[in-house]
Amino acid sequence: MLLPWIKAQARLVEVAAGRAPADLVIRGGVWVNVHTREVIEGRDLAIADGRIACVIEDASANIGPDTQVIEAQGRYMLPGFCDAHMHVESGMLTPAGFAAAVIPHGTTTIFHDPHEIANVFGLRGVRLMRDESVIQPISMFTQMPSCAPSAPGLETTGHEITEDEVAEAMGWDGTIGLGEMMNFPGVAAGDRQMLAEIAATRAAGKTVGGHYASPDLGRPFAAYVAGGAADDHETTTEAQGIARARQGMSTMMRLGSAWYDVEAQITAITEKGLDPRGFILCTDDSHSGTLVNDGHMNRVIRHAIECGCDPVVAIQMATLNTATHFGLERELGSLTPGRRADVILTSDLTDLPVELVIAQGQVVAKDGELLVDCPLIDWPQDSRASVHLGRELAADDFAVTAPDGANNATVRVIGVVENQAPTRALTADLPVRDGMIEPEGEVCHIALVERHRGTGGVVNGFVSGFGYQGRMAVASTVAHDSHHMIVVGTCRDCMASATAHLAQIGGGVTVFRDGDELATVALPIAGLMSDQPAPEVARDTLAVMDAIGQCGNGMNNAYMQHSLLALVVIPELRISDKGIIDVTRFEQLDLIV
Amino acid sequence: MLLPWIKAQARLVEVAAGRAPADLVIRGGVWVNVHTREVIEGRDLAIADGRIACVIEDASANIGPDTQVIEAQGRYMLPGFCDAHMHVESGMLTPAGFAAAVIPHGTTTIFHDPHEIANVFGLRGVRLMRDESVIQPISMFTQMPSCAPSAPGLETTGHEITEDEVAEAMGWDGTIGLGEMMNFPGVAAGDRQMLAEIAATRAAGKTVGGHYASPDLGRPFAAYVAGGAADDHETTTEAQGIARARQGMSTMMRLGSAWYDVEAQITAITEKGLDPRGFILCTDDSHSGTLVNDGHMNRVIRHAIECGCDPVVAIQMATLNTATHFGLERELGSLTPGRRADVILTSDLTDLPVELVIAQGQVVAKDGELLVDCPLIDWPQDSRASVHLGRELAADDFAVTAPDGANNATVRVIGVVENQAPTRALTADLPVRDGMIEPEGEVCHIALVERHRGTGGVVNGFVSGFGYQGRMAVASTVAHDSHHMIVVGTCRDCMASATAHLAQIGGGVTVFRDGDELATVALPIAGLMSDQPAPEVARDTLAVMDAIGQCGNGMNNAYMQHSLLALVVIPELRISDKGIIDVTRFEQLDLIV
Repeated sequence: MLLPWIKAQARLVEVAAGRAPADLVIRGGVWVNVHTREVIEGRDLAIADGRIACVIEDASANIGPDTQVIEAQGRYMLPGFCDAHMHVESGMLTPAGFAAAVIPHGTTTIFHDPHEIANVFGLRGVRLMRDESVIQPISMFTQMPSCAPSAPGLETTGHEITEDEVAEAMGWDGTIGLGEMMNFPGVAAGDRQMLAEIAATRAAGKTVGGHYASPDLGRPFAAYVAGGAADDHETTTEAQGIARARQGMSTMMRLGSAWYDVEAQITAITEKGLDPRGFILCTDDSHSGTLVNDGHMNRVIRHAIECGCDPVVAIQMATLNTATHFGLERELGSLTPGRRADVILTSDLTDLPVELVIAQGQVVAKDGELLVDCPLIDWPQDSRASVHLGRELAADDFAVTAPDGANNATVRVIGVVENQAPTRALTADLPVRDGMIEPEGEVCHIALVERHRGTGGVVNGFVSGFGYQGRMAVASTVAHDSHHMIVVGTCRDCMASATAHLAQIGGGVTVFRDGDELATVALPIAGLMSDQPAPEVARDTLAVMDAIGQCGNGMNNAYMQHSLLALVVIPELRISDKGIIDVTRFEQLDLIV
Repeated sequence: MLLPWIKAQARLVEVAAGRAPADLVIRGGVWVNVHTREVIEGRDLAIADGRIACVIEDASANIGPDTQVIEAQGRYMLPGFCDAHMHVESGMLTPAGFAAAVIPHGTTTIFHDPHEIANVFGLRGVRLMRDESVIQPISMFTQMPSCAPSAPGLETTGHEITEDEVAEAMGWDGTIGLGEMMNFPGVAAGDRQMLAEIAATRAAGKTVGGHYASPDLGRPFAAYVAGGAADDHETTTEAQGIARARQGMSTMMRLGSAWYDVEAQITAITEKGLDPRGFILCTDDSHSGTLVNDGHMNRVIRHAIECGCDPVVAIQMATLNTATHFGLERELGSLTPGRRADVILTSDLTDLPVELVIAQGQVVAKDGELLVDCPLIDWPQDSRASVHLGRELAADDFAVTAPDGANNATVRVIGVVENQAPTRALTADLPVRDGMIEPEGEVCHIALVERHRGTGGVVNGFVSGFGYQGRMAVASTVAHDSHHMIVVGTCRDCMASATAHLAQIGGGVTVFRDGDELATVALPIAGLMSDQPAPEVARDTLAVMDAIGQCGNGMNNAYMQHSLLALVVIPELRISDKGIIDVTRFEQLDLIV
């Protein structure tokens, strides 16, 4: 079991001195040294109380009758991998399920921002995520969400995060800093609350996560940096990445399920030869399918190597650089004395097969198989009852009434673009039947159903680009960032059925066609997460994707497009509980032009 | 004036945004970026409240009627230099005098371990050093001394440092961590007090200075590292330096007045190509003459460059690497927003002429001239009265009585070796006159005079290697580490006179010949430091060195040899208030064999 360093110190000295047996000894490994960037053959590694006692040529003196001995047989010993910024909820899993999914991939440290649940349950939701994080067999640190709501005035969240709550969370064990400060216009404008949240984080000696999603590298960027963010994972080009590093921020290059931002930026190191210490790898968002089928940080590091990065440099960017960024350099991130004994054994430094994983001194996975329990907390009953519609919705609730006597109407349409997060602000002329504006062709219904306070509110609109055909609906309680319910459909009856189904199961994603349920992922915790294992969630998600395809959609990221339709911080046109929102001018628009 | 970052934040944002004037703007500089290791042309730098607000292509918008503007005219803008480990007392100056001496050389941050005064005045002395440090115009951080006495049982210090005092000092503003833990055998043996001091430092989130002065890189080294030291400046070979870095320690390569340890180790970077982030430059000990004539960290960096190190890498090793090591990466060490505005302007990145120095936003030196006041504290009267002999000493106090009836005697002789800290344990046959053993030839008297508690104690012995001739004596209250008074001489009358003189002036170093004072450096504060400016101290020191030469000494480091004769942690033979000490077996020996 992991002891705090101070309590482990005396025994670590005894073991390192060769006077006491270790709990675990790895013999005959190749030491991948992320401090010096060396690969050193013929080393033993001794572990006591969950920490590394020594890395030495011969640890025979540390092998007692109760010492577990692992023969490395010339394999590489790497520090466990760190994910520097991510959202557990993106995997539709709770921290326990996420840990279980990524441990076999060699991830031993996660810095996660439970921004999604914060929008649903506020500080209490963050606390629940932290509570489950700190009992995992790997190190899971919580970044206190900074921006709920993401777009004040343009949406209503289930709860709002205040600066006092930020200050409170900084006092919790396991809080590593502030989650991505995405109100970058606010910071640059000197918004009092945003600056206060950052200041509270700095006062606690913790790290301020950044999010500057603008190509403007002039004064607004300078002002954002001056506000105190210490990193940024929203960079997508080499120039943006270098600009952050030059300003003393860490540039977090991400490879998520849908983010491919490493290749464009790693040239700062591989071609421009910059000091790599300011560059870090992360995932930001990983779906369960990615975790099950492709991997986690091992996938990101492997990708960096494929992009031409020196393997040890790539490993530094997911170990030592990350630890140093968060002020944890003496606690984890390298195979050196005193650090948490997070070790990976691999036989190849390029392909990185994860053959054995040790976390905090315990063998947690072998050959892809999880060997430990990742305990769930007892999620309180109300955390499983987050879908409050206030009333039963009928098909008519999704109807849009036309102006009196009109035969057709010009309406605003959210234009979805494949493989892009921004939407287009379109318009369409639609026919009117029985006083209702009827979508046709590429255009279908979209509704945002209020689900936090049970107001019974429904905002209707139109969307295009999904290619849906027949009588169908897709409904989801994952609807960034305020996570109301989004329902898209060609058929108002199906929309009502899908909505009712999600209300009944406590949230998730469901596809209905011709009145019948085609597929569902149940996400009963906060309407965002499952308490089932990742493979089951991945299987259900795949079934939903299949069902979406059966309804005529040919996109490779339809689910993500669905979940972002209410994200009122990314242009051009979105839907929120307040109405149709122009996200270039940050104002509400009438649906009918 | 420097504001804490939290109080400066809002204005930094306003300035960076271009909405407010700065206090100071540097225009048209070349930005030496220690994060990316780049040199970037055409940058302006705006400063507010002592901190960097932004580094930007055009800061015109920040120039108001009260803004000071400095035209860089294409010169390089560097971060101010940091000395990662040193002892202010080695300059025979207090923190104020030291700061005044090094500011024109571009030093803006000092991490100093007031180990010498701790031996004289204990925690109170450390506190006085801290008090003067925190009011300087540059950043001076205190490392709490860890080992007073250095050799428990073999010497008696003025005061002893306890683990509770270490814990107390960790709570002071300006304490950065623990000073060099030189009881490395103690740590490796699991000594309870040593481990407790380290643990108290770690519990406070601070940095543990190391000192492992042994070539053994096996189990004793592993045990020392496991004990928690975060750095080491005692490395003198490439292999030793690399060994520290591999273990996750920072390797501090020193170039002091008498330490030349950079050249042998920097090949780890220049030839072996290791990641330089774990390597740091420091001075450890600089005499006033070095500071006045040769420089400080600028001298060290220039030397590293002369040894083949890339200039920006060398600068990193005295800026960012140092700041990161002490957990101050967001506070200083680079020219990036939020950091203390410590800036050097230089026109050459190899020779490093220090043309302008800004510290905490204030121009503190220009073209070698100090432009600010470095205030002394009002040193309390008793800090100027540290030489307590308890009685008046006469020539006979320095006589060694022979065994009854002997015509000669075989005695132990401390053999001084030029340019080496270790001494040799010699013996000599000396004649007896009037019952007294009389030194002759190369051998002369040495006495350790107790000066802390006024016991009146005098320990006599013999020393060789200085080459002294005629009737002379050298006395010094700088006598590492317990800083009693050491008197070396050929003439007991001169020894008594020199002793009396130092007692009268409150300490220092003095040379007497034929009963007359030849030269003196007065060090009235703790018997270690002067409150005069460095040039005067350097001049007086030079006069003392000259006088020592006039007495027949031809060594190039006679003063240092004098001051180390009581250093009972370095082999082979030393003198302490307890007697003649064998520092290979750590036991007291009889003077007469």
